[in-house]
Order: sequence, then C-alpha cells, then structure tokens
Amino acid sequence: MASPPHSSSPNRPLSKIRFTISHNSSIFSLLVVLYLLPPLSSAHLYAGVEDTKGVKNDLFLEVLRDEAVARLNVLGKVSDADGYLERTYLSPASIIAGNIIRGWMEEAGLRTWVDQMGNVHGRVDGMNSSAKSLLIGSHLDTVIDAGIFDGALGIISALSALKVLNINGQLKNLKRPVEVIAFSDEEGVRFQSAFLGSAAIAGVLPVSALQIQDKSGVTVQNVLKENSIEISEESFFELKYDPESVWGYIELHIEQGPVLESVGLPLGVVKGIAGQTRLKVTVRGSQGHAGTVPMSMRQDPMAAAAELIVLLESICKHPEDFLSYDDQCKGFSVESLVCTVGEISCWPSASNVIPGEVTFTVDMRTIDDMGREAVIYELSNRMHQICDRRSVSCNIECKHDANAAACDTGLSSQLKSAAYSAMKRMAGEDVDDVPVLMSGAGHDAMAMAHLTKVGMLFVRCRGGVSHSPAEYVLDDDVWAAGLAILTFLETQM
Amino acid sequence: MASPPHSSSPNRPLSKIRFTISHNSSIFSLLVVLYLLPPLSSAHLYAGVEDTKGVKNDLFLEVLRDEAVARLNVLGKVSDADGYLERTYLSPASIIAGNIIRGWMEEAGLRTWVDQMGNVHGRVDGMNSSAKSLLIGSHLDTVIDAGIFDGALGIISALSALKVLNINGQLKNLKRPVEVIAFSDEEGVRFQSAFLGSAAIAGVLPVSALQIQDKSGVTVQNVLKENSIEISEESFFELKYDPESVWGYIELHIEQGPVLESVGLPLGVVKGIAGQTRLKVTVRGSQGHAGTVPMSMRQDPMAAAAELIVLLESICKHPEDFLSYDDQCKGFSVESLVCTVGEISCWPSASNVIPGEVTFTVDMRTIDDMGREAVIYELSNRMHQICDRRSVSCNIECKHDANAAACDTGLSSQLKSAAYSAMKRMAGEDVDDVPVLMSGAGHDAMAMAHLTKVGMLFVRCRGGVSHSPAEYVLDDDVWAAGLAILTFLETQM
Repeated sequence: MASPPHSSSPNRPLSKIRFTISHNSSIFSLLVVLYLLPPLSSAHLYAGVEDTKGVKNDLFLEVLRDEAVARLNVLGKVSDADGYLERTYLSPASIIAGNIIRGWMEEAGLRTWVDQMGNVHGRVDGMNSSAKSLLIGSHLDTVIDAGIFDGALGIISALSALKVLNINGQLKNLKRPVEVIAFSDEEGVRFQSAFLGSAAIAGVLPVSALQIQDKSGVTVQNVLKENSIEISEESFFELKYDPESVWGYIELHIEQGPVLESVGLPLGVVKGIAGQTRLKVTVRGSQGHAGTVPMSMRQDPMAAAAELIVLLESICKHPEDFLSYDDQCKGFSVESLVCTVGEISCWPSASNVIPGEVTFTVDMRTIDDMGREAVIYELSNRMHQICDRRSVSCNIECKHDANAAACDTGLSSQLKSAAYSAMKRMAGEDVDDVPVLMSGAGHDAMAMAHLTKVGMLFVRCRGGVSHSPAEYVLDDDVWAAGLAILTFLETQM
Repeated sequence: MASPPHSSSPNRPLSKIRFTISHNSSIFSLLVVLYLLPPLSSAHLYAGVEDTKGVKNDLFLEVLRDEAVARLNVLGKVSDADGYLERTYLSPASIIAGNIIRGWMEEAGLRTWVDQMGNVHGRVDGMNSSAKSLLIGSHLDTVIDAGIFDGALGIISALSALKVLNINGQLKNLKRPVEVIAFSDEEGVRFQSAFLGSAAIAGVLPVSALQIQDKSGVTVQNVLKENSIEISEESFFELKYDPESVWGYIELHIEQGPVLESVGLPLGVVKGIAGQTRLKVTVRGSQGHAGTVPMSMRQDPMAAAAELIVLLESICKHPEDFLSYDDQCKGFSVESLVCTVGEISCWPSASNVIPGEVTFTVDMRTIDDMGREAVIYELSNRMHQICDRRSVSCNIECKHDANAAACDTGLSSQLKSAAYSAMKRMAGEDVDDVPVLMSGAGHDAMAMAHLTKVGMLFVRCRGGVSHSPAEYVLDDDVWAAGLAILTFLETQM
C-alpha cells in the first residue's frame, strides 16, 4: 500500500495535493481536476464561523457543501476505466482513492492507517482514548459505470463534519474516540462477495474469503500481496474489533431509491436493511453447430437460461402466485422483493454455435428473511424442473447470503434528531418530520451490525437512480448530509 | 503475409517442415507435434501403387488416410488459444495454418500464392492452362472451441488426392487447371460476417466489408495491413474471378448433422444449402440499483431479452403457430428451421446492477428463403411488441443474409458417382446408393454459387456433432473422402 500524500499543514489547500501515479489517462484527468479546483483559503474554510451577518452563519457552507461537492467530483474521476467510473476492490484507482481519502482524514485532524484488508482508517481520540469509540463508515469501491455519490458521500460528509470540528478546535472535546473507516469493498464486484472490508472488521468474514478468485483467477490474498499486504491467518483474525471497545456505528448513504424525493425531504432515517442472496446459476447443455441440430434434438442452455430468467422475474413480481403457504408461514412480507440478473455469459460465445454453457447471476433482496428463503427454495425447485424437462444440467450456487439487519432504536432516534435539527437549521424554520425508511440496498452497516449497534441516515437522490452515471444528489443535500453528521457529533461532546 | 515454408523436394517428409513463429505456447505444442509425426518415406508415400498384393492396392491408404489424419491433427493444434482450438480470420494461428497448407500444396505439385483477402491458393495447369478451371475449396478458419475437421477436411482431402496424382505423375494429364483454395474466413466469428474469403472471389462481397470492425474496433482492412496486405478498392475488385475462366467449384465438408450416421454410410451428396440470416438484437432499458428499484417500476433489458429468446425458440420450434399464411404463401417449408442465440452480453455487467443494455445474436436457417423471410418478419414484429410492453427499446440489425443455394445437378451427379465408386472400391463390393442431403450449415459453396456451378460432398461425423471439440470423423471416412475426390479428379483427365 502506497503512502498517503503528505500534508504539511491541516489547512493546506486541496488544490496543492499532488499524486505521482500517471500511467493511466484517467489519472491524468484526475491531476487536471485537482489543479483546476479553486483553492480554499483559510478565510474560506473559516467562513462558517467568521461570517456573522447571515442567519446561516453556523452552517459551514464552504466546507460542508462546496468543498464536499468538489471532493465528490474528485473521487468520481478516480477510475480504472476511461470514460466511466469503475473502482473495484484494491484496483489501482482504489489505492489512489484511499490515498486521497487519507489526505482528507489528516486534514481533518485524524490519525490514519490502512489495515490488512485495505480499509482506510482515520481516528481521533477526543477526551478519553480508552472510552468506547464511535465508528462512522462507508465504502470507497464502486460498481462498474457507477455514480459518484454511492459510498463516497458517507465518507466525505463524515470527514467534512470532522474538519469543521478540527478547524474550530473542538476535536478534543469529543467524549469518545471517533473513527472514520473507508471500507475497501462493499459492492463485491470483483470477487462476487460483498463487504470484504467491513465483514473482516466485524469478525464475520471467514478466513476462506482470502482464497476467493476473481474472473482471471486472482485470489483476494494475491491482490493484497500485489499491494504489499502480506496477510496471515493470525493477522486476518486480528482485524476483528473487540465489541467491548466500540460504542456504535453510523453510516450516511444516498437512498438509491425514490422515497425521499417523493416526500420532498433531503434526509431520512433507516430502520433496517433488506436481506440479500446472490446466486450463480450455471446451465450446461450440448454444444453444437447452429445450422445442423434440429430444434427438437437440442439441449440448448441459452434457451433454458432465458426461460429461467423469465421465471425469476415472474416469481419476484408475484411471489404469492408461486409460494405455497402453510398455516405457520402465512403472511410473509415479500412485497418488497426484488430480483436482478446483472451478469450473463456463455461459452464458447460465437453466433453460429449452440452454446455448451450459460452462466448468470441472481441478486435477490427483501426485508423478510423467511420470505427470501422461501422464494429461493421455490425458485431452485422450479429451475431444476425446467432444466430437467430440457435435458440440461443446472447448478445453483449461493455466492452471498446476508439476513436483514435492524438498526438500533436509540441510535436511530439520535440520528433522526440530528437530521431534523440540520434540516431545521438550513430552513430556518420548523420542517416536516424526518421519514423512516427501509433500505433495499445492502450497506456496510449490515456487516457492522454483527459487531455493534448501528444507525443509518439516507440522503435524497434524483429519481432514486443509483449504480449509474445518472446518479445525482443536490449540492444542498450534500450540505444537509454534512450538517446532520456534524450535529450528531456535537451530541458526542 | 509471411512466406510459406520452403520445400526443397516434393517428397520432403512432413516432419522436417519448420516454422519460426514461437511466441505462443500453442505454437510450441505445434512444433512438438510436427517433430513427433512419423516421417513418411518415399516408400510409404508410394505404398498405394507399389503394393500389388492386396485388393486395396490402389487405395493409397498411407496418403489418403494416415497422412491426411496426421495433417488434420497438426492443423487442429494450430490455435490462438491455449487448451482449445480457435483460429479466426487472419489471426496469428490462421497465418501459420495458411503457411502449413501452402507447404502441403507445394508438396502436391501446385503453384501457390496468397491473395489480398488472405485466401491461400494452389494451382496446377494440367494439359491446357487456358481451359476453364476446376476449383476445389474449403475454409481454414474455425469457430471458438472448434473441432479439427470442420473446413480442414475439405482442404486436406483435396491436397491428399492431388498429392497422389503428383506422385503418380498424373497432374499433367488433367484436362483443365485444378485450383485448391483454402478460404480465409467462412465462420465469420471475428467480424460477424461469414464468407469474407469466398465472397470476394465470387465477387459478391461489397467493398464496404473492408470497414467492418471486430469487437475491439479493428477493421478488416486494418487486419490485412497488419499482415502486410495493402488492399485498395481497385485490387479488391480484382479478387473476383472471371466466371468465363471457371468450369465449376466442388467442396467436401463434414456433414455436421446426423443423417449419414443414421444411414450408416461415410459419404453423401448435397443438393442444396440452407439460407441464413444473422441478427444482432440490442435491448436498452433503465440501468439502476438491484436493491432499490421495485419490480413494477423496472425497465429491465435482461428480463426483456430473456422473453425475446424464449419467443425465438417457440417460433422456430412451431412456426406454423405463429405465421399467418395467405393463399399464395401456403406451403412454406419451414420444417427444417433452426434458430440459435450463440452470444449474449450486458452492460455494465455487475451482479448488483440492473443492466442498461443487453445484446444478443440470432442465427436463423432454413432451406426455404421465403419461409425465412416470413419468420424474420413475424419475429421482428413480436419482438417489438414485447419491448414496447416492457418500455424498453429494441434494435434488430441484420448482420448477414444469404439465400439458400442449390447445387448443380450435373456436378452433383458426377460427385455422387465418385462417392459411390470410392465406397465400392473400399468395400470391395456393391454398396448402398449414396444419400442426397440438404445442408443446414452454410459453406463457401454458397458464395461460390454466385460465380459458377457448385457441387458438394458430405462426410459422416460422429453424432452429427460439430463446432465442438467432440467433433469426430473415423479415419476410414477420411480415407473415403480423399478417395472420392481422387476418383472425381480421375474423371477430369
């Protein structure tokens, strides 16, 4: 792992930070962007406290909005791909992003390090270094062709809020240590196994995860080694935090759904996160010439896979038509069930060859764990029936399975107050009550819930669109996010 | 284009042929194989004529069977991939295969050259160099994960038969020039456009074909240039043969279907080749997060593509249920209709992202051109209906369209006699009549039919399997193939 850029002064303007990696044109774009960012002078940074004329003089607009938005745009350029955003687990761009984040952590007055799974940490002890710590996190990896807010907003809003405390000399007043963690893997794009970073810290990642291979056969352990991280079984288990040392975990994230937009509010509180199962389905048939095998004699895995995908959609749209409830199980709440086939490939992949094998992924989520299990069971049975009828083989492999996670009531209540207070401070008057939502998307909080109590805030995004370059959060909503975290931190003094 | 290996003597043993390209491990395997092949001495080569003891003394077993099988195994190792056979248009392995074939042509007493589309030619003038020529051809390219007989058998059996005539000093007795052509592209894997080689010679390839791009954006013209072939519009049109200079075209190919095996005979005559349409279907929807977009709000191109593929299969299995015949069109013979989706891909291809775009290929064939057109029309209409209902867009692009080709009655009759005579010579007694078949697979003969009369022989393959490493032809059937071509050539004296 490369060293973070050295910051000689906590107030050193962002525009002076330099990076040396330059073999990729995306990196060139990054350097250009960094130099084009308007330098934030000390006067700018302190504007929130120095300007006493307006009603919003304690809202730190320059740090919590303008600089945070600029930082989101910077991280949004740190990509392994040309022309779109892609930053998967420990890729070259991920390493650069981690270094940039470390620089921002240091600017916020935090002590930083990178752990053996590539997570980037920044910590301030506050008044009592041995008190239980508050962890604040989100992820620095992205999907392929991603938006710039997913993950990054949670890290940046926490660092912006801490930077304000640092500028105001308030870090020392924190009654407990506060640690920001930028998790190295939440999306699970590269290794098809989400939460590699947070699950290791929560102690729920099996050591066997080190041997998971990406598409080119490279293991997690190989990738760590390539980045000069020699992980052993012993050091792997040392990643787990002692639950006794942790007070709680909070995470701020874009909603990635349409609810906050529909109620017209920038912030919401999450009561729980949907459970998720990821399957890899492999259908094998009889490879042959596209022109000579009669339709009636084919064992075509492509036609079979198509039928399986149509079935999957039908089950997920109308689970009630497929599940046979018994008396005990009546009332599964599978209304919020969503199923996605996001990847598909075939072998040998030539237009004039009947494929021998087709592989696709299934991503299934619902807030009801029993419902999800029942649907998976029914789906598997019906998939095998279809494959049997077509004389093809069908292998259904579970790649990831996480139960729904409930957020802590007390922590949620505190976050709700902070969000309400932030919205009220920005509006200058009373505002509507903060909505309480379920999360259909998985978050690092799901893994962290195994370690400690968790709470989450959601931020409105346009059209509910995420995992897409069209993902967008209003500048003022970025501001609201930072202000809510700052308000929450002020309760920790 | 590299120079062919120089052969100092027509009897120079195959095992001494050397190649210098060695950057690929497959090439190393090839070199090993070449050195391991048992050298065929002059005594071996002449065995067919020298051994007068057995009943099969004129059957040239060593050349037409043993050496031909060895040559098939050699070409089967010339691959761009490690562990399976892949040799697409003008790939490094294709160049090597062309050079090997040129060496065998020279060994058979032919004058050789490579034309501006990469086709490899070998010609002998016979008694009258200005007489109309007989062309014999097949293709040297392969599909991905191919068998070793598809294409190669037609080239090798022609060269083996000519080698026998060369050994026996009979080439000069041919009453017309005979030219063997190893076509550079029949499968169309790389550029999704079949018959680049034969269509250029037949004069039916548009000059715009030079600008077709492969998946990485490289054009046909670029690939030619990479191989030191500078093609201009003028030289492109010079590729077309003058129909007045050609007597006819014959091609021998494995059946790639189950008919000959079911009747228990090694050879059959082809009466015609099915017409073929290749489509590229692109479905575009709304990319989004797999966890947060409710099923009812999705515009998912993957689910749509799956429904389209299921529809395609249904139409091709039971076209009568879908086509509305009018009085005039009654009786479309679409019974032999076959449809295949051999390639599929999606963007951005991550398991937790609803794709924004899914692309797949359709390969459709039938012996009835009007039937094929009617099915394409009906399929397109219904595909658009499905896409409209799902609020996704659907673009159906025709990448290749070739009408069915009828074989020449006279030429077919001569080939049938040659096949019958070969089978009878091998059996030593009368045999069943040679079956007459339709070809579901496309062949270079389809393109060549635009230039001259064509005829084809089919050779039995195990289980009708082709486009698969399981493709297999009995050694004795390879022998029968060579003997049939030799017998046909004997009618040209």
